[in-house]
Amino acid sequence: MSNEQVKFDLSKEYLELVLQAIEKRDKNFIHQTMDGVDPADISLLLDEVDAEEAKYVFDVLNDEVVADIIEELEDDTRKEVIEELEPKEIAIYIEEMESDDAVDVISELPVKTREQVIAAIKDPQTAAHIQELMRYDEDCAGGLMAKEMIVANINWNIKQTIAEIRRQAENVEKIYSVYVVDDLGKLKGKVSVKTIILKGDNVKVQDIYDEDVKSVETFMDEEEVADFMQKYDLVAVPVVNLQGKLVGRITIDDIVDVITEQAEEDMQLMSGISSDVEEDDSVWAITKARFPWLLIGLIGGVLGAWAIGIFEGPLKENTALAFFIPLVMATGGNVGIQSSTLVVQSLANKSAFEESFAKRIGKMFLVAFLTGVVLATISFGIVYLWKGEINLGYVVSISLVCVVMLASFMGTSTPLVLDKLGVNPALASGPFITTTNDILGIIVYLAIANLLLS
Amino acid sequence: MSNEQVKFDLSKEYLELVLQAIEKRDKNFIHQTMDGVDPADISLLLDEVDAEEAKYVFDVLNDEVVADIIEELEDDTRKEVIEELEPKEIAIYIEEMESDDAVDVISELPVKTREQVIAAIKDPQTAAHIQELMRYDEDCAGGLMAKEMIVANINWNIKQTIAEIRRQAENVEKIYSVYVVDDLGKLKGKVSVKTIILKGDNVKVQDIYDEDVKSVETFMDEEEVADFMQKYDLVAVPVVNLQGKLVGRITIDDIVDVITEQAEEDMQLMSGISSDVEEDDSVWAITKARFPWLLIGLIGGVLGAWAIGIFEGPLKENTALAFFIPLVMATGGNVGIQSSTLVVQSLANKSAFEESFAKRIGKMFLVAFLTGVVLATISFGIVYLWKGEINLGYVVSISLVCVVMLASFMGTSTPLVLDKLGVNPALASGPFITTTNDILGIIVYLAIANLLLS
Repeated sequence: MSNEQVKFDLSKEYLELVLQAIEKRDKNFIHQTMDGVDPADISLLLDEVDAEEAKYVFDVLNDEVVADIIEELEDDTRKEVIEELEPKEIAIYIEEMESDDAVDVISELPVKTREQVIAAIKDPQTAAHIQELMRYDEDCAGGLMAKEMIVANINWNIKQTIAEIRRQAENVEKIYSVYVVDDLGKLKGKVSVKTIILKGDNVKVQDIYDEDVKSVETFMDEEEVADFMQKYDLVAVPVVNLQGKLVGRITIDDIVDVITEQAEEDMQLMSGISSDVEEDDSVWAITKARFPWLLIGLIGGVLGAWAIGIFEGPLKENTALAFFIPLVMATGGNVGIQSSTLVVQSLANKSAFEESFAKRIGKMFLVAFLTGVVLATISFGIVYLWKGEINLGYVVSISLVCVVMLASFMGTSTPLVLDKLGVNPALASGPFITTTNDILGIIVYLAIANLLLS
Repeated sequence: MSNEQVKFDLSKEYLELVLQAIEKRDKNFIHQTMDGVDPADISLLLDEVDAEEAKYVFDVLNDEVVADIIEELEDDTRKEVIEELEPKEIAIYIEEMESDDAVDVISELPVKTREQVIAAIKDPQTAAHIQELMRYDEDCAGGLMAKEMIVANINWNIKQTIAEIRRQAENVEKIYSVYVVDDLGKLKGKVSVKTIILKGDNVKVQDIYDEDVKSVETFMDEEEVADFMQKYDLVAVPVVNLQGKLVGRITIDDIVDVITEQAEEDMQLMSGISSDVEEDDSVWAITKARFPWLLIGLIGGVLGAWAIGIFEGPLKENTALAFFIPLVMATGGNVGIQSSTLVVQSLANKSAFEESFAKRIGKMFLVAFLTGVVLATISFGIVYLWKGEINLGYVVSISLVCVVMLASFMGTSTPLVLDKLGVNPALASGPFITTTNDILGIIVYLAIANLLLS
C-alpha cells in the first residue's frame, strides 16, 4: 500500500501502520496522514501506543497540535508521555495551552519538574498566570478558571475594545462576552459580541454594557459553579475575588467535565469501587479498587452469621425459618437503595424550598408503610399456601413491614446526615449501607420469629 | 413592612408575601419585586405555588420573561400551569421562545391544543419552524436542534453577513459561529464572530471561512451528539440532513441537560426505580415507581426460599450452614454490581479501540479469581476459628470463589449483552441482576455444602 492511499482512521490497521512508521522513523507518513486531523482523534490513537512512540509523533507534529493532544490524552497516558519529555519541551507545549489546561497538566508533575517547567516558560505573563492559578484549590472556581478573556475598560469605546480583541486574538479561542471593568479592575458588566458587531466604533462601552452580569467568586465549589451555570444557562462566567475584581473566566466545556466526573464518582460510590478506576486499568488496580468494599461486605456477612447464630435454637426447631432470610434481606436492601437514591438525587438538584427533615421522614414512612403492607400481604399468601404455617406467614409479613420501614429510614436519613457532614451522600447507596441494612434485617426477622414462635 | 423594602428572595417569607399579593390582586407588588429578577429564579418560586396563582403572575409580567419562566419550570408545574392558559396565550409565549424550547413545550400539550396553539401563532416562519422540528424524534439531533442561527451565503461579504446578523439579532440569542452555505443551502464551513469583528466590511466570506466545520446529521442519537460535542469541545454544532443541507443548530445548554438526564436515569435504573420520579412527588407516585422492582426482589426472595428448601435435609443436620447464607449472598451481590458498573462506565466512554468480549471476560476472570481467593482465605480463617469446623470452612471458601467468579461473569456479560440489544446497560447493575446473583449464590453454596458435607 502506498502512503498516498492511507488515511487517518481509528482502526487497528492504521494503528499498525503508525507503529511501523514510528519504528522506521518515517516522518512523512505521520505528517501526511495526521495533518489536519482533529487533535482529539489523534489523542485517541496515541492512548494505545507506548510513551516513547507517542513522543516520536509529538516531535513530528507542530507544537500547537501537540499541546491540544496532550490535553485530550487519558490521564494515565499523559502522565507516562510527559515523563518522557524534558522540562523545556513541556514548557513549549504549555505555552500553547489555555492557562487553565496548562495548570491541570503542570499540577500532575512532580514538584521539582513543575518548577523547572515554569522557569522554562518564555512569556513572563504566561508564567505569572500559571503561578497565580496554581494557588487555587482545583475543586473550586479559582481552580477551574482560565486567565484568557477579553476585558474592556468602562471608559473605552468600541474601537478600543476591538483593538483589545485583536491584541488578544491569538490567546482567546472563544470570546462569548467582553467583560467590562472599572479603573480598579472591578467587574461592572458585560458586552456581548453581537452588540460589538452591531454598534459603531465610537459608541462608548459605558453606554451599551449590560450591568446584569452573573459572576462567581474564586472559592465557590466546582459543583456549585456547575449548578449555577446550568441554572442560568451560561456558556461562560466571570470569576471575581473577594474585592470584586475580575480575575478569570470559566467556560462551559470545563463544567461539562465536572458534571460527567461527578456522575461517574456517584456511580462508583454506589457500586462500591473505591478509587477512580476504569475497566481497562490493570488487573491489580481493579482488584485493589474493589477489595475494600468487598471486605466490608465480608465483615457484614460474618456479623450476619453471628446474628443468625444468636437464634440457633429457634432455627434448629424450625428450619423453614432460614428459608426466608434471603427474602427479608433482599427486600431491605432494595428498599434502602431506592430511598437513598431518591434523596441523593433531590440533594443534587437543590431546590430553594427544601422540605424539612421531619416532613421528608414523615413522607418516607407513609411510602414505606404502604409498600411494606402490600409486600407483606403478598408474602403472607405465598408462605401460607406453600408451607401451610399461618404463624410463619405472620412472622415473614410482620418482619417485612418492619424491615421495609427500617431500611427506608436508614436510606432516607443516611444521605441527609452525610450531606450535612460534607460527605458525598451517594455513599449512602453503596455497600456500607446495604450491608448495615442486611444485618438489621436479619436481626429484626429472627427476633420477631423468636417472639412469635416460642 | 412597606412594599419598597421587600426584595425578591427565594424564602418562605417572600413566597408568603407573593401569595398574599396574588390574593389581593396586587400587581404593583409583583412588578416591583420581580422586575429585573432572572426568570430562572422566578420559576423556582412559582414551582411552589398553584397553577392559578402562577397564571396571575404570568398576566402581570411581560411575555418574554414569562416565556423564559415557562421553559425553566419543573415538568409537573409547567403542565399544570399550561392547562390554565388559552391556546392563544400559549401561542404568545411560544413566539418568544427559541424554536427548540417551543417544540418541547408544545409536545407536552394534548394533540388538539397543540394544533390550536400552532394555528394561533402569528409569525408564519415561527409556525413553519415548529412544524418542521416536531417531525423529528425528540431523542435525536433533529429533536434537539433549534432553527435560530446565523447563516451566510458563501458569496457574501462581511457587510452582508453583518446585515444578516442585524436582521436576526432579536431571534438568535447567542451567535457562537456564523455558518456558511452554498446556493443550495449545503453546509460549507463556518466563520467565527471573532473573525467577523476583525475583518473589513468588503472581505468575502469565501476567502475567510473555515472549511473544517464539524456537523451532525439529523438522525444521530442525542447521546452520540453529547459525546461528539464533548469530544471536540464544541459549544454549538450545525445539524445537516441527508443531502448535507444545513437545517439547524444544537447548543451546549441542551447537551448539558442530556448528560444530566442520562446520569439520573442510569442511577435510577441501578437502584430500581422504574419511572422518572423525584423525592418531592406524591406518596402514590413514588410507591408506584418503586413497587415493580420490589416485587421482582420479592419473587427472587421466594425463589431463594425454594432453593434453600431443596437442601432442607443438610440444613436440619447442620444449622450452622444457614449462618453463612447472607455472607455468600452479599459478596455475590457486591461483586456483581462492581463488575457491571465498570463495564457500564466503559461502555459510556466508548473508546475507538474496544477490548474484545473474550479479552474482557478473561481479565474479569483474573480479577475475580484473585479477589475470590483472598476473600475465601479470610473467611476460611474466620469460620475455622469461630466454629472449629474445618469442613464448613472449606464449604464457605470454595463457595465464595465460585460465587465471586459467577457474579463477575454475570456482572460483566449482562451489560455487554444488553448494550448489544440496544437496552441501557445500567439496568445490569439494578435489582434484577442482584436478585439473580442472590439465587445463584444460594444454590452454589448449598450445593457445594451438600457435596462436601454428606
